[in-house]
Amino acid sequence: MSPNPETRAPRAGILVTGTEVLTGIITDRNGPWLSERLREIGVDAAMIEIVGDRPEDLLAALESMAAAGMALIITSGGLGPTADDLTAEIVGRFCGREMFLDTALEERIAEILRPMMSRWPDLTEEAVRRGNAKQAIVPAGATILEPEGTAPGLVVPPADGRAGPTVLVLPGPPRELQPMWATAVATEAVQAAIAGATTYENAIVRLFGIPESEIANTLRTAEADGLDLAPLEITTCLRRGEIEIATRYEPEAAADYERLLAFIADRHAATLFSLDGSTIDDQLAGMLAGRTLAAAESCTGGGLATRLTDRAGASEYFLGGAVVYSNAAKIDLAGVPPELIERHGAVSIEVAAALAEGIARRFGADLGVGITGIAGPGGGTEDKPVGLVCVSVYAAGANATEPRRLTRRTVMPGGRADIRDRSVTVSMHMLRRVLLGETD
Amino acid sequence: MSPNPETRAPRAGILVTGTEVLTGIITDRNGPWLSERLREIGVDAAMIEIVGDRPEDLLAALESMAAAGMALIITSGGLGPTADDLTAEIVGRFCGREMFLDTALEERIAEILRPMMSRWPDLTEEAVRRGNAKQAIVPAGATILEPEGTAPGLVVPPADGRAGPTVLVLPGPPRELQPMWATAVATEAVQAAIAGATTYENAIVRLFGIPESEIANTLRTAEADGLDLAPLEITTCLRRGEIEIATRYEPEAAADYERLLAFIADRHAATLFSLDGSTIDDQLAGMLAGRTLAAAESCTGGGLATRLTDRAGASEYFLGGAVVYSNAAKIDLAGVPPELIERHGAVSIEVAAALAEGIARRFGADLGVGITGIAGPGGGTEDKPVGLVCVSVYAAGANATEPRRLTRRTVMPGGRADIRDRSVTVSMHMLRRVLLGETD
Repeated sequence: MSPNPETRAPRAGILVTGTEVLTGIITDRNGPWLSERLREIGVDAAMIEIVGDRPEDLLAALESMAAAGMALIITSGGLGPTADDLTAEIVGRFCGREMFLDTALEERIAEILRPMMSRWPDLTEEAVRRGNAKQAIVPAGATILEPEGTAPGLVVPPADGRAGPTVLVLPGPPRELQPMWATAVATEAVQAAIAGATTYENAIVRLFGIPESEIANTLRTAEADGLDLAPLEITTCLRRGEIEIATRYEPEAAADYERLLAFIADRHAATLFSLDGSTIDDQLAGMLAGRTLAAAESCTGGGLATRLTDRAGASEYFLGGAVVYSNAAKIDLAGVPPELIERHGAVSIEVAAALAEGIARRFGADLGVGITGIAGPGGGTEDKPVGLVCVSVYAAGANATEPRRLTRRTVMPGGRADIRDRSVTVSMHMLRRVLLGETD
Repeated sequence: MSPNPETRAPRAGILVTGTEVLTGIITDRNGPWLSERLREIGVDAAMIEIVGDRPEDLLAALESMAAAGMALIITSGGLGPTADDLTAEIVGRFCGREMFLDTALEERIAEILRPMMSRWPDLTEEAVRRGNAKQAIVPAGATILEPEGTAPGLVVPPADGRAGPTVLVLPGPPRELQPMWATAVATEAVQAAIAGATTYENAIVRLFGIPESEIANTLRTAEADGLDLAPLEITTCLRRGEIEIATRYEPEAAADYERLLAFIADRHAATLFSLDGSTIDDQLAGMLAGRTLAAAESCTGGGLATRLTDRAGASEYFLGGAVVYSNAAKIDLAGVPPELIERHGAVSIEVAAALAEGIARRFGADLGVGITGIAGPGGGTEDKPVGLVCVSVYAAGANATEPRRLTRRTVMPGGRADIRDRSVTVSMHMLRRVLLGETD
């Protein structure tokens, strides 16, 4: 289902450097972020490649991307003050450009560093100066992107008379790389490299509570029913228990996409929760406006609270929560009657319901969520296996409606991290349902 | 500082497939995991490449890795039941092998699916059968790795008489990929491909509270002082405010590494907290054995509780916590005197200290942590800017020692996520210091 090759967008490769990324010490966030940004400007991100801090590997990756016909290569990382950071030099060589010390840039970097010096009292001034002079050695003819941290970005076109991709060199820390993006794209050299980009439409719908194979079946049935899916590049994936269907298409295929969307909405009304790309997090933030929420979590250990408060502004509806690992905490902080734990066990729908109601009362919140389960790997029994999770949502009565409750008992697959993560997702979807009026 | 090329280990490329990974919809966890496993068996992971679900891109990536001299290529993903999953077929073509339907494998997959059918009442049996027959079409001559989910793995050597790398084909979900690893490595075909691997030593040390440039300076000084760093492949990186120095070396360079280690330990005694690769999480888990802990968190929203309970067995020392976003919750759950908030504001060292002591008392815990700050982007003032975080650790008196307290006020750089994450790390290091006997 690839788009017609004749109308293909210019292609770009993303080259993430750093032995610490290659070896898994740190997780790359730049590759996916750059890939999304490229799509927005109509450039096809064809690959993300991660290589270590070895000059020969970096050069080989640049050369293989050039051979694969990339119009633009974006590198991230390798611009730091240490000797293993060598991206600028290798890119200079790849583009056939000499390196030189840009003394004006060196002075601007020194200016940036001055206030930092006071933060680290035992810092050697000489060490800082030497490290950062290195950051001012750049390929001749490159466009400098002003540092957000201490490392400048670079746009390096091939040397005069040479063919090949333009290389956009960005620093590794996402907080430095991201603010440089808009400036980088606006440069003449990047604009020349991506000339001819056509903007694609990108649409995402999300479903919860359905297996991926059922979506595959729906897509096959749609084609059998005569829908034209050829102009649509459709990707389905399972994430945190949700199914995402991402579709990319040229603007003229909008009607084909609309027909597909109607077909999916018709077959999967009960599980389709997002038509506009919004996440469950987005939706809850909107639905919770004007209400208040508290959570009592056992097996998720604060994961729901953390996820809710990832968003700025969460304090307007999220009053707080309790992490009630011990039974004493369940009783004391969330007001669970001790006899309920004795009779049904700490992992039970009864205790989940008591946690939800108890924490709502404790915080004086409109809504309460209670989560209790066995995340493993230990602690499972035949009756209550690892993965058993009980979630309850309590909504205090308003406008003369009775209080509402929604409580579920599920056995989740996977390891400890999966079970904890999935439990948070399930509780968010149950919260959504209660906010839409559903009840036990 | 690369090792001598003559003694170089066999090299492997990791090829992660999936438009959902390339576009950033899901985060790749397999590349870094496989990279670590390869190191363990003495194979040099030279690159991780991510491509979308386009046959021509997948094939081009395989071919460029072969051209770069990889002895082994490991793919992850693209083995699902949907039409966009095409790894097995492309790898078959790349290795010059015909595809055929392995009917015995098809039957084993059907067997696995039977119990799943009951979980999804509205599932179409025909859809499942068709999707999973596709998963049993494999290259002739490949070694089958039994499915952990529904997708089998494959080891595909080049067809007889052809040169080129062996391809190990693994499924995308980490919980299916990871258990297949040991079996895959033990196969004759993989063993033949990686013959000659020599095991490297990998060592990591960690420091907290020091800038990366200072480590660069230490490394330069070590060389100037006559230490031989040439046989050591050293990578430094900044992660969550900690500095990691990862070093890879052949066993005969052990003495060179020991000398470097002693040099670092001597210069950075105050900030070096891990010599053996252990993380702060590992260390706290060990130090907390036999004690109990509770946490009251405001700006981190449960991030400390979540991180502590990521570990199985955390319930033995972590009693629980409170997420006290609102002032009412600070007062009610963590026993902060209201006049303290009035006088000093909710973000103050006084309130942090009261949170730490209050939550310890509330839970009857030996130790309490209190965190309050401004994660932003809103809520900052000139006096109390975004990034201001106050952390306090309280240790109840034992063995006639007075209660101990350690309280710090810091202004952290970065965005909301950075500030929250860094605050959790800072609180863990302060907890460690208190457990080592430090006090205000």
